Amino acid sequence: MHELQTVTFSHEGVELQGQMAVPSGPGPHPAVLVVHTALGIGEHMRKQARLLASMGYVAVAVDMYGGGVYHSNPSAAGAAIAVVFENPALIRARIVAWHAFVSGLANVDSARIAAIGYCFGGRCVLELARSGADVKAVVSFHGLLETSRPAQRGAIKGFVAVYTGAKDPYAPEAHVEAFRKEMIAAEARWQLTVFGDAAHGFTDAEAAAMKRPGIEYNAHAERISWAGTVSLLEAELRGA
Amino acid sequence: MHELQTVTFSHEGVELQGQMAVPSGPGPHPAVLVVHTALGIGEHMRKQARLLASMGYVAVAVDMYGGGVYHSNPSAAGAAIAVVFENPALIRARIVAWHAFVSGLANVDSARIAAIGYCFGGRCVLELARSGADVKAVVSFHGLLETSRPAQRGAIKGFVAVYTGAKDPYAPEAHVEAFRKEMIAAEARWQLTVFGDAAHGFTDAEAAAMKRPGIEYNAHAERISWAGTVSLLEAELRGA
Repeated sequence: MHELQTVTFSHEGVELQGQMAVPSGPGPHPAVLVVHTALGIGEHMRKQARLLASMGYVAVAVDMYGGGVYHSNPSAAGAAIAVVFENPALIRARIVAWHAFVSGLANVDSARIAAIGYCFGGRCVLELARSGADVKAVVSFHGLLETSRPAQRGAIKGFVAVYTGAKDPYAPEAHVEAFRKEMIAAEARWQLTVFGDAAHGFTDAEAAAMKRPGIEYNAHAERISWAGTVSLLEAELRGA
Repeated sequence: MHELQTVTFSHEGVELQGQMAVPSGPGPHPAVLVVHTALGIGEHMRKQARLLASMGYVAVAVDMYGGGVYHSNPSAAGAAIAVVFENPALIRARIVAWHAFVSGLANVDSARIAAIGYCFGGRCVLELARSGADVKAVVSFHGLLETSRPAQRGAIKGFVAVYTGAKDPYAPEAHVEAFRKEMIAAEARWQLTVFGDAAHGFTDAEAAAMKRPGIEYNAHAERISWAGTVSLLEAELRGA
């Protein structure tokens, strides 16, 4: 059940290949975009999409790079992903395009869309919120918090939840503090959770395989961040 | 079901009267102390105790003041509670005494005890953790974070979770920052969640009745903080 199907569209000359899982029962359904880490769409994103579909959401694991690529080797990924990773305007335009694509699906209620993202995907969903897109909620897990275009006052329409580790070298304290100040200045609805003993990648049970300093799975942080996310999605997408 | 029964013991010449709810099924059970706001044991604490019992915990709404008092009028409570409220050594000694009392109950597994507290009760459970008591987890909801005796390195045995509102005048940013630094220095396992639009008393649906500036119910903050707490208790008290 909740098989994945490939969904594609072209953005700025690149064919993007996402993976969609659809809930049982008639739509339209609320939808959740799932945005991958710097490595691209891997098994973790697929699993989250299936899980969200089982909870009643149309879940689309989006592709920010093109071709639905996944790089199991972080070092090799560098050059291939840099064209997107280092281009803030492209990141924002592309995640906004994914949001528009999902909004237009026949089985999706376009007024009830959220987005969750991991690592680089955390940055993407924050950029989506900053863009003023009509999202009910975005959630960043060990995401990159910095931005070249902080949110303007009143621009953010949905709830912004950030889960970060105090030992995450990719989201240092200065970035966390800048995010907090940005949200206050933007008059957003927001929530920030810092896990004292968590590092980067805390939701990824395979994190240790990367053998990179500062990247580590943390069962507690994964568990609490997911419980909060489930509760947030229920409240914002279902009015539960 | 899950009726409350009064439990009493004497501490420093004062008879404390808590309210206990017991789960169905044979013990020993894990236990959760529930610590009241500055007003004393009210309906909210009773409700939380019953709810926790329905989840399988021996839940004891403790009495920090004596006589099981509750002051519906915050102004009138001032003098009556000041003797405890303004005495850090007494606060710590009394919550430690409650922990010892609950640990000694025949139907409680003394190796699986947690404590949750609201407002003043948040301070109490943090003091319990700082004392080095054998608690698996403590949770503070819009609690007072300052202390006269910060935790020593390695003293805190259990997980410490704090949920606070960015608009809580009783937990200003300086206190939040001091707490964060204290936890890092103590090498505790900790988590801090800040809700951007929440004030003091965010779990209390009757908060508005107090008509005090900076005290306000917040459904989102209540919901997310409770989801995290349920998940934390399952993990720390049941190994789920």
